[in-house]
Amino acid sequence: MKKLEQYREEYLKQFKNRAYGRNLFRTQKEEQIDAPAEECGIFGLYSENNLDTFSLSQFGLFALQHRGQEACGISVSKNGKINNIKDEGLVLDVYKEINEPEAFMGNSVIGHTRYTTAGDKKKYNYQPFFAKNEYDQIILSIAHNGNLTNARQLRKELEEEGVVFKATSDSEVILRLLQKNLDLGLRGAIKAAMSRIQGAYSVVGMTRNKFFAFRDFHGIRPLVLGSIDDKTFAVASETCALDAVGAKYIRDIAPGEIVYTSTNEEGLKSYLVKDDCVRHICAFEYIYFARPDTEMEHINVHEIREKSGEKIWEQAPVEADIVIGVPDSGVPAAIGFSKASGIPFRPVLIKNRYIGRSFIVPTQEMRERIVNLKLNPIISEIKDKRVVIIDDSIVRGTTSKRLVKILKDAGVKEIHFRSVSPPIIAPCYLGIDTPTKDDLISANMSLKELTKYLGVDSLEFLSMKSLMEILGSDKHCFGCFTEKYPVPYLDEMK
Amino acid sequence: MKKLEQYREEYLKQFKNRAYGRNLFRTQKEEQIDAPAEECGIFGLYSENNLDTFSLSQFGLFALQHRGQEACGISVSKNGKINNIKDEGLVLDVYKEINEPEAFMGNSVIGHTRYTTAGDKKKYNYQPFFAKNEYDQIILSIAHNGNLTNARQLRKELEEEGVVFKATSDSEVILRLLQKNLDLGLRGAIKAAMSRIQGAYSVVGMTRNKFFAFRDFHGIRPLVLGSIDDKTFAVASETCALDAVGAKYIRDIAPGEIVYTSTNEEGLKSYLVKDDCVRHICAFEYIYFARPDTEMEHINVHEIREKSGEKIWEQAPVEADIVIGVPDSGVPAAIGFSKASGIPFRPVLIKNRYIGRSFIVPTQEMRERIVNLKLNPIISEIKDKRVVIIDDSIVRGTTSKRLVKILKDAGVKEIHFRSVSPPIIAPCYLGIDTPTKDDLISANMSLKELTKYLGVDSLEFLSMKSLMEILGSDKHCFGCFTEKYPVPYLDEMK
Amino acid sequence: MKKLEQYREEYLKQFKNRAYGRNLFRTQKEEQIDAPAEECGIFGLYSENNLDTFSLSQFGLFALQHRGQEACGISVSKNGKINNIKDEGLVLDVYKEINEPEAFMGNSVIGHTRYTTAGDKKKYNYQPFFAKNEYDQIILSIAHNGNLTNARQLRKELEEEGVVFKATSDSEVILRLLQKNLDLGLRGAIKAAMSRIQGAYSVVGMTRNKFFAFRDFHGIRPLVLGSIDDKTFAVASETCALDAVGAKYIRDIAPGEIVYTSTNEEGLKSYLVKDDCVRHICAFEYIYFARPDTEMEHINVHEIREKSGEKIWEQAPVEADIVIGVPDSGVPAAIGFSKASGIPFRPVLIKNRYIGRSFIVPTQEMRERIVNLKLNPIISEIKDKRVVIIDDSIVRGTTSKRLVKILKDAGVKEIHFRSVSPPIIAPCYLGIDTPTKDDLISANMSLKELTKYLGVDSLEFLSMKSLMEILGSDKHCFGCFTEKYPVPYLDEMK
Amino acid sequence: MKKLEQYREEYLKQFKNRAYGRNLFRTQKEEQIDAPAEECGIFGLYSENNLDTFSLSQFGLFALQHRGQEACGISVSKNGKINNIKDEGLVLDVYKEINEPEAFMGNSVIGHTRYTTAGDKKKYNYQPFFAKNEYDQIILSIAHNGNLTNARQLRKELEEEGVVFKATSDSEVILRLLQKNLDLGLRGAIKAAMSRIQGAYSVVGMTRNKFFAFRDFHGIRPLVLGSIDDKTFAVASETCALDAVGAKYIRDIAPGEIVYTSTNEEGLKSYLVKDDCVRHICAFEYIYFARPDTEMEHINVHEIREKSGEKIWEQAPVEADIVIGVPDSGVPAAIGFSKASGIPFRPVLIKNRYIGRSFIVPTQEMRERIVNLKLNPIISEIKDKRVVIIDDSIVRGTTSKRLVKILKDAGVKEIHFRSVSPPIIAPCYLGIDTPTKDDLISANMSLKELTKYLGVDSLEFLSMKSLMEILGSDKHCFGCFTEKYPVPYLDEMK
Repeated sequence: MKKLEQYREEYLKQFKNRAYGRNLFRTQKEEQIDAPAEECGIFGLYSENNLDTFSLSQFGLFALQHRGQEACGISVSKNGKINNIKDEGLVLDVYKEINEPEAFMGNSVIGHTRYTTAGDKKKYNYQPFFAKNEYDQIILSIAHNGNLTNARQLRKELEEEGVVFKATSDSEVILRLLQKNLDLGLRGAIKAAMSRIQGAYSVVGMTRNKFFAFRDFHGIRPLVLGSIDDKTFAVASETCALDAVGAKYIRDIAPGEIVYTSTNEEGLKSYLVKDDCVRHICAFEYIYFARPDTEMEHINVHEIREKSGEKIWEQAPVEADIVIGVPDSGVPAAIGFSKASGIPFRPVLIKNRYIGRSFIVPTQEMRERIVNLKLNPIISEIKDKRVVIIDDSIVRGTTSKRLVKILKDAGVKEIHFRSVSPPIIAPCYLGIDTPTKDDLISANMSLKELTKYLGVDSLEFLSMKSLMEILGSDKHCFGCFTEKYPVPYLDEMK
Repeated sequence: MKKLEQYREEYLKQFKNRAYGRNLFRTQKEEQIDAPAEECGIFGLYSENNLDTFSLSQFGLFALQHRGQEACGISVSKNGKINNIKDEGLVLDVYKEINEPEAFMGNSVIGHTRYTTAGDKKKYNYQPFFAKNEYDQIILSIAHNGNLTNARQLRKELEEEGVVFKATSDSEVILRLLQKNLDLGLRGAIKAAMSRIQGAYSVVGMTRNKFFAFRDFHGIRPLVLGSIDDKTFAVASETCALDAVGAKYIRDIAPGEIVYTSTNEEGLKSYLVKDDCVRHICAFEYIYFARPDTEMEHINVHEIREKSGEKIWEQAPVEADIVIGVPDSGVPAAIGFSKASGIPFRPVLIKNRYIGRSFIVPTQEMRERIVNLKLNPIISEIKDKRVVIIDDSIVRGTTSKRLVKILKDAGVKEIHFRSVSPPIIAPCYLGIDTPTKDDLISANMSLKELTKYLGVDSLEFLSMKSLMEILGSDKHCFGCFTEKYPVPYLDEMK
Repeated sequence: MKKLEQYREEYLKQFKNRAYGRNLFRTQKEEQIDAPAEECGIFGLYSENNLDTFSLSQFGLFALQHRGQEACGISVSKNGKINNIKDEGLVLDVYKEINEPEAFMGNSVIGHTRYTTAGDKKKYNYQPFFAKNEYDQIILSIAHNGNLTNARQLRKELEEEGVVFKATSDSEVILRLLQKNLDLGLRGAIKAAMSRIQGAYSVVGMTRNKFFAFRDFHGIRPLVLGSIDDKTFAVASETCALDAVGAKYIRDIAPGEIVYTSTNEEGLKSYLVKDDCVRHICAFEYIYFARPDTEMEHINVHEIREKSGEKIWEQAPVEADIVIGVPDSGVPAAIGFSKASGIPFRPVLIKNRYIGRSFIVPTQEMRERIVNLKLNPIISEIKDKRVVIIDDSIVRGTTSKRLVKILKDAGVKEIHFRSVSPPIIAPCYLGIDTPTKDDLISANMSLKELTKYLGVDSLEFLSMKSLMEILGSDKHCFGCFTEKYPVPYLDEMK
Repeated sequence: MKKLEQYREEYLKQFKNRAYGRNLFRTQKEEQIDAPAEECGIFGLYSENNLDTFSLSQFGLFALQHRGQEACGISVSKNGKINNIKDEGLVLDVYKEINEPEAFMGNSVIGHTRYTTAGDKKKYNYQPFFAKNEYDQIILSIAHNGNLTNARQLRKELEEEGVVFKATSDSEVILRLLQKNLDLGLRGAIKAAMSRIQGAYSVVGMTRNKFFAFRDFHGIRPLVLGSIDDKTFAVASETCALDAVGAKYIRDIAPGEIVYTSTNEEGLKSYLVKDDCVRHICAFEYIYFARPDTEMEHINVHEIREKSGEKIWEQAPVEADIVIGVPDSGVPAAIGFSKASGIPFRPVLIKNRYIGRSFIVPTQEMRERIVNLKLNPIISEIKDKRVVIIDDSIVRGTTSKRLVKILKDAGVKEIHFRSVSPPIIAPCYLGIDTPTKDDLISANMSLKELTKYLGVDSLEFLSMKSLMEILGSDKHCFGCFTEKYPVPYLDEMK
């Protein structure tokens, strides 16, 4: 049984750290400085109304758990003292026991959920990051979602100036730039930092008496503003986190905007670092990442997904008996497709809720056995049927190919595959962890080749034109579809 | 901020042990001997074809994770030596690191997933249970789903005979009865045990060279048989676990049946302890517990649920704009309802996947804030609409009431609530953890009172007649709806 | 600094597990089945007078700590239930926190201190050993000091009969033989075991309602009996442990004697398995192992050591200015030597109390630096003096050679080395962990060669004749000096 | 057995943290800010000759283990980076496993052994202390032996200036004063600190590129200087630590002296902050604390102790059969007494090496049982004898009283008790942890009363005159004997 043991070991390796991951786009490489950064969730709350901001921040992070399950962290400022708890695990696990809860009952709080990574979990990369003074007191803390494109260069320059880094994440570059410039005042420090960093960044943070948030000049990663009452402001990656704390969604933080407040300020101040910024929210947030109940720029994500299903029916109609969505993000599109086409929607792919997106065992023999482990079809519902199957996207193609096999094994008559995003032909350098071009199947196969490779009767991608129509704008980041990014300088990343 | 800290503490208590629970029916009391037992999942595999049964058993248990997330365990027999690993946590977590994997590469394996409990986690109640000989070697191991109704009495008798118990679970009574009678041979021991125990039990087990499974005389809890090849047999609570290991579903283990095999036997032997047993599968397995892709007695669970939606439309039609299902088990019924009624199905209640069914904070103030934390509606989709909302059942009524509030806050015009199970008026003594009668809202309110209590425009439960029509039989356990149980003697339980 | 780091690593390895060890005789090899066993301390107490036997047993073991510092253990019988705590560490550390102290407040207790070993610490070899019944209850527990000479053979035979071993220690053979024969009654079981085992063994033990002790047919390892009151009996390796619990020393357990008691017996029963046994207490117990305040056969150890100093002066007088004893066991001999010779005794070798006997670093360079780390002389006291230095024995010779160097570096004029034991020329197979013959310097060098090797002005060993005169008997085990052992069959050991 | 369990609990509390302590002077109170500080050992090494300073510092601390067994710590500077490891435990335990040994292979090292405390062990009080810069890098580290008498006042002043303290020890006041003044240069910073702190302090320390040591203006606690070669300097509390690393003892650091060096300096620089300082080494270091092989001001400690025995014979001769020393520090005095008087010295009080000085159980019943646990006499040697018993001092009197009881129980005919220090009548505020005046028996009883209380036939203390003769000087701190301290301002301490 030597062989068994060997693939057993490989197999167990696969399992590791994957329990709840959304590792669709996961590269298998180790984290490196400036490596494609993580999709994350950030949240912040400032209240002068004696609210339990610590509990509320947990609610907010819990609602953003889909943006990162590896680790989470919270910094709280109470009477000018900042405390931080961050650890591996889900929000409900990390905060179930707190040593000194009273130290966290402050009026200002920021939090972060961190995306699962394939490699070593490096605790020093967990967020919120913080900087200390010479007496070991935290004087500044931030949580960042996005990815800087000139982090390596900036880090080098800062190190030459005597700055010492403790982590490998590009987010620390933002922290150290702020720390270095704190004598310019908070707004001055943020402005100074924004003048040097390039890329995608949505940031919430605090000093010992101030609370702030800011967003890059293109507004690539989402960041919304809400309020619970007239003295309580919330900032979050998605509106679903505002809902979770009972906050009203006011508006999105603008590209190039700084908002900040403190006990000395009246209300929340806003300051635009640049006037002429144009929004370029990541299109993939709508297609895949954001929760369906979230709104960005006051547009509901679920609606966009339903429309994408309608649109792809218009674009590529087909005769079929049933339409199926790949759970979870393919389901609204399937419903839209059904609505537009009249073909009945059937929820007959059952997803195991206790696992992430990928689940691979190394040997072919074992792989064939577990093909239904993550998605299991109700065979009686699809046998001998002509099936339209709708997924949000095709990345490497392996998941789609496996799905096709499941359907075929279940005895479907025809398979018509629809991706409600355009072909992904380029990596993301702005906050989503994608494979390199070599592993993006649409960068390497024509539609015809891919149709054959998947073994389907027809295959269609949403066109860029359709996508822009649905989103109602061409002002988005479409980099992964077009290889054109809103950020000019990307050399370091490539 | 004293007050904040106080409810903070209470609030954290609430969180504890609830991360992934399905605690719809959870009583808040501590475990006691013979207390209402847990809904669990069991799995077993016997192969003479050199398969990696340990990996496969993890796949099987993973597919049964919905039947219990508190703990899991696996016993493996290798060359006459039984090893066991059981621990708190999900399958993917407990088995990600194994000290001596080679000790688990045997040909016979049984496993168990254990339901979350509200009280103290007591490790000695984790399964599989095992009995040792005088040299500390495991000679017998079993995994049990169900609940004995005379466990307390049997335990007392056995203790008087000198038997020593190590846990408080009724499952240990089965183990000790088997251990005590092992000199009758395996089949004799099982027969002797079955002659004394009463209640619901589906059991898989192993001695050092034999593998076996047996089911109570009414077949209350599910247990199915499958095969991977002619020398590899699988036994599982649900067929979805057979699918997960690539096994073909052969049939359900019959009420009163023992199946067993060993290296000395040819194939799997079957033995009927009683000839005249009548099946009474728990109806609630179809309604709520089982996975939709599972079949019991060759009937697909998803189909039953869709039919329940159609049936309740027939039973209680209503004019409305959209129909919504409470995720997850209410969704197929909503689709059936939509199909029958023509009212469009809208998947607009978004469920946070990182939490169990209940999520309660202690103070009213905080509770009002987090009402949307678990289920968040897409307001634009339901505002000013007449809504049919379908849930699998109403137990305490608190969850339903909160849901109605969410919908009203979102501005729906009318709410028509439909439960696709009959009113629950009595506790389950046969394997499901339910509240006492005092806490079952339908045992304490008329339909009219409940309609008013929930604040809905109409309310309807599936009738017993409809339920029997859907299931195609009156031979089920309907105890929680009728207070009539297939097992005669229940005095000890009450 | 590569080189530094390398020997640093080797150096740290040396430190490991050596903190408090008496590893004079330590072989560097790993433990093996039947490998030279450990010198250990055992203790037992039985009381019907409601004494705190658990505390008292800790006092007793504490007084025997010099016989073993690696690990210790205690078994207590309370109301027919035996509990056991054993762990790595000193008595004061292992028992400073107890989970359920009330479970240890029983009337019968046995304990064990285990000698430090160079190799892996194997927890399963810690004592007291115990055997369980099929319900995981301890039914028998023993603590053993000594070494069996036919353990390997017996183990093989027992395994063929189906007995399962859990440890590698020869002590488990005694346990399993007793367990196997328990149906003969306790006395019958002990008798049956003693008829099969050969070698040195002093044993204390308990069943659920009985307390017992027995000693091999030659009485090689010590075992004494005492009483606190008429209903409280104590058994111990040394009388210093009786003193520690306030017990009166009655007598030594006789060779081939079993003593036992229980709640049903009146007082302590004694039974002689053989009538004609002759005592052969290990001579080295007097010379080195036992505490100076201990008596064996009513002879005080300190007195023997003083006499050995007097005797070696008679045997080999010398002109000198001062006499020094190597702490600790060489000091009484030095005082005896001083008394007999009139040469002043000077306590000028200062021993660091926080380390064991050996302390070696791997590189020559570093070794030279730390030569004074364990023993540091007061130079002003010995410079330009003619010094008699007295040690209890010379084993490998390395320690003595290093000591000579220390003295020479301090500027002594003459060194006259005296060993108050005869040359050690053979290993011990009966309970002391000695090097093999190859490493015993007296087995490989003549007196003349050794004198030159050590670089001393004169060297003398106590003669066998002198030793027998001091001990007042030739009925001892002198195996390590004569290669003649009281136990006939030693083939397995060699 | 309720009662048993209760005192069992109290008894276990007694054991806690006492394993190896020298708690002669231990107060039972909790640590407080500025509470009487601990007797400790400090060590430092600076080498430009590529020595393994980390190993050597362990040798040095190991030799100072008698000055503190609770915790130990080492700071190493390597290439401008300071690393620190400190933990509870003995040197041989704390450093047996190091995560990144290469980080500790630097050229400059300081270390500290910390005295056992009765109360809570507070990790933040372990030494060496260190200060960090804003990038979390250690820039300064010190180890301190002694006690400041104005620490509370200084701490208050510094906190008002914005300095943040992390521990409760007075040693941190020194650290923060140095940190605050670092811009004056190292020497300037030390000078500035010395101008403000009062009391007893011997300090070794390092910045990222410098090594230093300094001593208070009275030289109360010891501090010696040695060298291994012309580029390797060692500083230590006692010369025995110099011996342990193979360093030559050069001289004592002078009162008010700073020594320092760095890679830029040539050799070791010395700077006298004040010219007219007068040495006042603590007399109790000679009597009790220091190791007998240590020299202070080139006077050997063992010799002083022998002389004290001779002197007390001269002072108070007596007829007796034998003289006994209480191990360990009473033994040299007993030998001196024997030499002067001709009364034979007998080493017949056997000390258990595995325990600290005090060992108390709470109930009288149990206490009577364990009276011989720590010191056990060889009865045959003292029975019916007239005994002179010599101890280094009498503090609370309880230990002495117990000892007298042991001797009487053993049947001695007469007891003549001799303390080779004068009566202790006042607490120490300068680095030794003593009881308050209320608990010092000589502060509360006349010689006559004490003689009666102890129940001895005669009692004598060494006179102050004799002590000064032995020490050859009246320039010592005799505060505990005279209540006159060399440090003027002690109000804060009282």
